[in-house]
Amino acid sequence: MPTLQATLEEAYEAVLPEVGQGALANYIPALARVPKTKLGAAIVTLDGEEARVGDSDEAFSMQSISKVFTLSMALQKVGATLWHRVGREPSGTAFNSIVQLEREHGIPRNPLINAGALVVSDVLLENRGVQETVGAIRDFVAGGLDASAVVVDAEVAASEAETGFRNASLANFLKSFRNLNHPVAAVLEVYFHQCALSLSCKALARADLFLAADGQDPLRGKRIVSPRRARRVNSVMLMCGHYDASGDFAFRVGLPGKSGVGGGILAIVPGRAAIAVWSPCLNEQGNSLAGTALLERIAAQTGWSVF
Amino acid sequence: MPTLQATLEEAYEAVLPEVGQGALANYIPALARVPKTKLGAAIVTLDGEEARVGDSDEAFSMQSISKVFTLSMALQKVGATLWHRVGREPSGTAFNSIVQLEREHGIPRNPLINAGALVVSDVLLENRGVQETVGAIRDFVAGGLDASAVVVDAEVAASEAETGFRNASLANFLKSFRNLNHPVAAVLEVYFHQCALSLSCKALARADLFLAADGQDPLRGKRIVSPRRARRVNSVMLMCGHYDASGDFAFRVGLPGKSGVGGGILAIVPGRAAIAVWSPCLNEQGNSLAGTALLERIAAQTGWSVF
Amino acid sequence: MPTLQATLEEAYEAVLPEVGQGALANYIPALARVPKTKLGAAIVTLDGEEARVGDSDEAFSMQSISKVFTLSMALQKVGATLWHRVGREPSGTAFNSIVQLEREHGIPRNPLINAGALVVSDVLLENRGVQETVGAIRDFVAGGLDASAVVVDAEVAASEAETGFRNASLANFLKSFRNLNHPVAAVLEVYFHQCALSLSCKALARADLFLAADGQDPLRGKRIVSPRRARRVNSVMLMCGHYDASGDFAFRVGLPGKSGVGGGILAIVPGRAAIAVWSPCLNEQGNSLAGTALLERIAAQTGWSVF
Amino acid sequence: MPTLQATLEEAYEAVLPEVGQGALANYIPALARVPKTKLGAAIVTLDGEEARVGDSDEAFSMQSISKVFTLSMALQKVGATLWHRVGREPSGTAFNSIVQLEREHGIPRNPLINAGALVVSDVLLENRGVQETVGAIRDFVAGGLDASAVVVDAEVAASEAETGFRNASLANFLKSFRNLNHPVAAVLEVYFHQCALSLSCKALARADLFLAADGQDPLRGKRIVSPRRARRVNSVMLMCGHYDASGDFAFRVGLPGKSGVGGGILAIVPGRAAIAVWSPCLNEQGNSLAGTALLERIAAQTGWSVF
Repeated sequence: MPTLQATLEEAYEAVLPEVGQGALANYIPALARVPKTKLGAAIVTLDGEEARVGDSDEAFSMQSISKVFTLSMALQKVGATLWHRVGREPSGTAFNSIVQLEREHGIPRNPLINAGALVVSDVLLENRGVQETVGAIRDFVAGGLDASAVVVDAEVAASEAETGFRNASLANFLKSFRNLNHPVAAVLEVYFHQCALSLSCKALARADLFLAADGQDPLRGKRIVSPRRARRVNSVMLMCGHYDASGDFAFRVGLPGKSGVGGGILAIVPGRAAIAVWSPCLNEQGNSLAGTALLERIAAQTGWSVF
Repeated sequence: MPTLQATLEEAYEAVLPEVGQGALANYIPALARVPKTKLGAAIVTLDGEEARVGDSDEAFSMQSISKVFTLSMALQKVGATLWHRVGREPSGTAFNSIVQLEREHGIPRNPLINAGALVVSDVLLENRGVQETVGAIRDFVAGGLDASAVVVDAEVAASEAETGFRNASLANFLKSFRNLNHPVAAVLEVYFHQCALSLSCKALARADLFLAADGQDPLRGKRIVSPRRARRVNSVMLMCGHYDASGDFAFRVGLPGKSGVGGGILAIVPGRAAIAVWSPCLNEQGNSLAGTALLERIAAQTGWSVF
Repeated sequence: MPTLQATLEEAYEAVLPEVGQGALANYIPALARVPKTKLGAAIVTLDGEEARVGDSDEAFSMQSISKVFTLSMALQKVGATLWHRVGREPSGTAFNSIVQLEREHGIPRNPLINAGALVVSDVLLENRGVQETVGAIRDFVAGGLDASAVVVDAEVAASEAETGFRNASLANFLKSFRNLNHPVAAVLEVYFHQCALSLSCKALARADLFLAADGQDPLRGKRIVSPRRARRVNSVMLMCGHYDASGDFAFRVGLPGKSGVGGGILAIVPGRAAIAVWSPCLNEQGNSLAGTALLERIAAQTGWSVF
Repeated sequence: MPTLQATLEEAYEAVLPEVGQGALANYIPALARVPKTKLGAAIVTLDGEEARVGDSDEAFSMQSISKVFTLSMALQKVGATLWHRVGREPSGTAFNSIVQLEREHGIPRNPLINAGALVVSDVLLENRGVQETVGAIRDFVAGGLDASAVVVDAEVAASEAETGFRNASLANFLKSFRNLNHPVAAVLEVYFHQCALSLSCKALARADLFLAADGQDPLRGKRIVSPRRARRVNSVMLMCGHYDASGDFAFRVGLPGKSGVGGGILAIVPGRAAIAVWSPCLNEQGNSLAGTALLERIAAQTGWSVF
């Protein structure tokens, strides 16, 4: 049986021809100038085995992947009451759609679409300011890592704020239904900063390992969230982590996963491992094209699909 | 044949029992504290005959009725190019719905729903500041009237701004589709101020007389808009002036009309007269309950329906 | 001042270059093989003056224009109770959309979209069979005309039935909400036959003259519907007669009108005249391209717009 | 560690108080007269261990659970080309919604909503008649069971046909988009008969065991579908098996599952076991209330969640 490193390398080689296909996110300059040829991946198992390949040490913009961490934090903070303010059903629409929100009176369908993530940011703002909240999110993600492994990219945060009219629209909409407790501007600032977090595949796989281990970081022996909540974050990820392509990702990869428009994807293998991949060019659904292909291949080789 | 004044008085008496039914708009304090018992109406004919009844001299908040005047101004300013940025079809949805806007990529269905009126405000901002634009709107409405007949109610404008999250959502949404050229905050400020214009039935009927007279104010002999545009403003009013109850208004009253959440309604009798009614309690569709009843009765008595 | 005939001829000449632009309805063979070059029009005034031009004597398939007549019949039959089963608001969607029907629990928005017309057909079936109902519709349309002026085109009716899956879907949907009292197959058979009625512009203008004259056929001196109902049919036509292009038709033509996919359009000039035009090629909204242009020109020349 | 039988019994006792809460499906008489007090469950593991409790031997109406079997058959028959005609994304709407179908031009979102299941029925009709197709479905479900374990309930099938206007609407709608190859009536007949299949929890758990075992029936040693397809059926079930409550089921139970309006639910534990539960009263989402509670408890006790 091949080692994990060998399996990862083989998958990497097989996927290389697809790198650069698709298109870079271009709504902010910092994302539009990332070299299209990047591809990296990292796997960490529960017993600490690591495999890495390609640009696995290079930092990229976390974007929506941060939603998995803020969801974990919010559940830790307010528990199941979170579900009074946000659902946990797939949306059947694009990540930034406002249609469903009107039909369902300001309750976002799930915490991984933008509207739901804004509600989560609002929860995290409770009893602290914007700066402190952003710091807490950074620290939560950085958990067992070097202090320098996770940083806020100030240029990205500023660009998001300048161009984020759709998110501002969603936040004002939520506010009109009284589903934000803090000022719209504060919620948006937290949200734009969490999206601007930057880290490498190596750091990301390590950072989300607790979700593969029933909520406890196995390498630090530290409980992050309860077992039940870890499983539920995973279920929400599987159902909703790729917006309106979640069914396709479940079908092809078969693992709870969350993509970001920066080209990163994290995937959880419950009871076994955490995986992070990164390649900046996106497919039509807005998910990393080569990254998805790499995950599909890893899942096929390892038999790690949950199905 | 009864005089216009007699007809109006008879209709007024018949409708009095309905005054106070329905509910006051309560989203801002200034509207919520208007006495529920108010009912007034004024008619001006093209040859200058006037009829008035009840609280026809008392000023009320113009709210959405202002959209008819800003639409006229925008057509005067940019002509038919306006229709590249806003449609002229009924919306089939509520006045502040955002659903249609997403489906039709940021082009509001018509200039009389909130989203469309925000685009119109943006057009009016071209080449001038917020203050100047608000002043120009006030002056346009005040046209042939005493300078004091039309004022901006500063408390209403401030309240609108404080609670206007849904409009802020719409404006940001339009901006995300690049259908606003000016900053969101400036467009909203113009919009909230135009809604806060205050005038009496007497003044309102006089102010919109040009729309009944092919675009020329017959009493001042001054052309306001071209004949063709006056007719088109009227057609947009008939189709879209009462949001998702426009069909009902056409069915019951049969005149181009525009309602405001302050309880006012203007109605145009092409070639004959302009009518303004006011009663602050609203029906379930958000239109003046007694005001609509009064217009229905006037239309029935006069035979002025366009059908 | 030019005669009506001269006005019509001038408009005809001006529009001729547009004839053949657009596309034939092609969902059934009988419509797809009509010569693209046809253009005809007829006007009848309340005092019996007639003007005609082009192919005004040639019969064409009435299609959705029949809905105006069946609506008049249903109002005559059940009065205002009709409005418990069908609304009178513009739909904001395509003529055969089912979306709105689901959202509004089986109550069609208005009687001029397909779903609403199916409810109207169901009303007309009350207390009689399919054959008798179709005969009654034919006789109602033929009213003051030669018996041979209005016929059911059996080939068209059969084709409609064979290809009418969307209408069968709508009818079953209505039935699932208990908004049809008769069997789906019977309602569809009535509907397909009313759409297959065939008549000329000359006959059509004459047939709908009662709607321009407060419900009384002025040439026969016979009351068809009450004045109030005639006006209301006209208001529904203006609001809803061109589906999701009704606003545009009101804007450009300014008259109550109803189009059919066979290329015909009727227009009512309240208090003055009835107009029928026909040219089989359709614009993108499914309305006669040259026919609409001809009506726009007639309205501009005559000043007959209701606005 | 408790035996499987002990675990199941404990869960059964805990859930008993919830039996009879909720409401029976009442759209057809045969379902409306099932005793509300029924509760049964059966588990079969890959190595043949069985646990059973309550009314596990009593036959109930399979209803939508049949969709999992017909999906497996269709994949076996036409392979991945199935996905040209039906998607695999959650729908975000009710099981029999037609809205999405219009927006996405006749391609149902997934094979487990009614519209998608109708397309699957159409696939199964290829090259054979209605009777033969229904027989083939029955035989597929009955696979390793006694011939008498799975029967078509003729009364249920007849009732479905009589009241199935919504399904008839969906089928006609699909046909209008040319996404059915066979006559609407034939497709509906197959569909109504597959829904009328009747079997016990004991039989059901045994019948779907192949899905827990990579597509091979472990007790018969017979391959039913390829490993890849078995996993994909499971992924579609997890994403879409409970319509617009799929996210909730994944969150609470964490297993691929499919419910039917007859009160049955099947759940797959990949690599371990198949579970069938039945209790006829439904929660607001139309899924068995006590059955869901029982599955939630079993999943919690066994730790079998895939997350």
